[in-house]
Amino acid sequence: MESRVRLLRVGPAGAERPAVLDAEGRIRDLSGVTGDIDGDFLAGGGVERVRGTDLGTLPELAPSTRVGPPVARPGKIVCVGLNYSDHAAETGAPEPAEPVLFMKAPNTIVGPDDEVLVPRGSVKTDWEVELAVVIGRTARYLADDEAAMACVAGYAISNDVSEREFQLERGGQWDKGKSCETFNPMGPWLVTADEIADPQRLGLRLRVNGETRQDGDTANMIFGVAEIVRYLSGFMVLEPGDVINTGTPAGVAMGMPEPKPYLRAGDVVELEIDGLGSQRQKVGQA
Amino acid sequence: MESRVRLLRVGPAGAERPAVLDAEGRIRDLSGVTGDIDGDFLAGGGVERVRGTDLGTLPELAPSTRVGPPVARPGKIVCVGLNYSDHAAETGAPEPAEPVLFMKAPNTIVGPDDEVLVPRGSVKTDWEVELAVVIGRTARYLADDEAAMACVAGYAISNDVSEREFQLERGGQWDKGKSCETFNPMGPWLVTADEIADPQRLGLRLRVNGETRQDGDTANMIFGVAEIVRYLSGFMVLEPGDVINTGTPAGVAMGMPEPKPYLRAGDVVELEIDGLGSQRQKVGQA
Repeated sequence: MESRVRLLRVGPAGAERPAVLDAEGRIRDLSGVTGDIDGDFLAGGGVERVRGTDLGTLPELAPSTRVGPPVARPGKIVCVGLNYSDHAAETGAPEPAEPVLFMKAPNTIVGPDDEVLVPRGSVKTDWEVELAVVIGRTARYLADDEAAMACVAGYAISNDVSEREFQLERGGQWDKGKSCETFNPMGPWLVTADEIADPQRLGLRLRVNGETRQDGDTANMIFGVAEIVRYLSGFMVLEPGDVINTGTPAGVAMGMPEPKPYLRAGDVVELEIDGLGSQRQKVGQA
Repeated sequence: MESRVRLLRVGPAGAERPAVLDAEGRIRDLSGVTGDIDGDFLAGGGVERVRGTDLGTLPELAPSTRVGPPVARPGKIVCVGLNYSDHAAETGAPEPAEPVLFMKAPNTIVGPDDEVLVPRGSVKTDWEVELAVVIGRTARYLADDEAAMACVAGYAISNDVSEREFQLERGGQWDKGKSCETFNPMGPWLVTADEIADPQRLGLRLRVNGETRQDGDTANMIFGVAEIVRYLSGFMVLEPGDVINTGTPAGVAMGMPEPKPYLRAGDVVELEIDGLGSQRQKVGQA
């Protein structure tokens, strides 16, 4: 029996198989327990099934296997903008009075160590380390924070990669700079909600070519996880497997002095959040 | 053999079966030809298979069956804002220099005659008749309009239902007022691209409680279908089954004098586009 559950998906892109980390950090194949880590798995008691399984009986997978995103293609990716006061300040925006929402195309999801592509014609590709919330239960007009937290299946790291010219200078609505191919590395793990004692006390860091660029704490979110989920449920129906990127702390390229160090092919981006593992992306050119 | 292909999905919400209209307008069951009308069907030669089938050999379905959206849940719904000059003018916005993009949550898709729900707390729920484009082939950095049109599987009617206070007065990014439950009635049919001689010569109309509110023509789009698909492919990867709502002509409630006739429970909205059939939604309260 294992109470700490860290779920992942390993294998070639588009053909990942479900897996779980055991207490020794070995990758165990979950194919015999579920077809995938997706909304049906999360809503259908999948985590409890994994918890009731002796992981030692599951086949071990080679550690060299590629890690994919920890949930299958989500139905939607909703993002909260300007949700850390230091980040709002660095972009010159006032602190929002209620959550700013935008969306990323769900097919931006890639594995935590997959290549990130600078789009053609881009000169302002930027990074954003974020706490990703994965929904485990349908959320519609939730009454309070307790109901909201009951809809959270778990957490992961997201890199909310953003093209600032596309987002802000190309005629309207941020989605245009948020949905490019490979723009949402996610993972390595989905860590179940019960394992994170307080999602508002997690350090999150990002380095580019070894240099620390972001070093924040979810304590500084303007709107916390429970409030975000409750708020969102009044504007749309959240479904199992949906992903919410909860905003980024200060330290993005856009907020730095000229010449701003936007990403270029060959750069290496590393992200980590306490308890959620780490990511490492090499930057390429589309 | 049938060259005109009008695909649809009939049955209870979430359990629709694929179907096709025959030359006499009868609904024929396509379950023996495909599991669903979705991206795999469109990308995998499904339309050609239907075209090669003698529809008279397919079981007939009762005409009273509920009609669902004509494609299964899309991977994404991308929308073009302010794409008719008369609509841009009525909202007080300048004509865009390049397409304005935003997204709707894919789970807003409902059938053409399903109930539309005014969200809780809403006083500004509005209508928008739009030509929906359904993608049939992966679109990524397309070179020209010809390549773009080759990625279009077909067309349908969308009602891009919009809550104007959520969209414009609640702290940022239009998506917040575009993604509420039931906010994208679509259908009744997916009409294949070859059947529409010129997508820029289609009249589109919308009535509320019998009164004409929108009466436009796709000839007045600022950016046409080919340009929209080509443009979008430079900002995101479009996939088979994705839906693009191409903008609405003048005549929305927001553009009318006070008191603006926003939708209320009990209202009836009817939409039609030349060659694409018609929709009729009763408005309810969430």
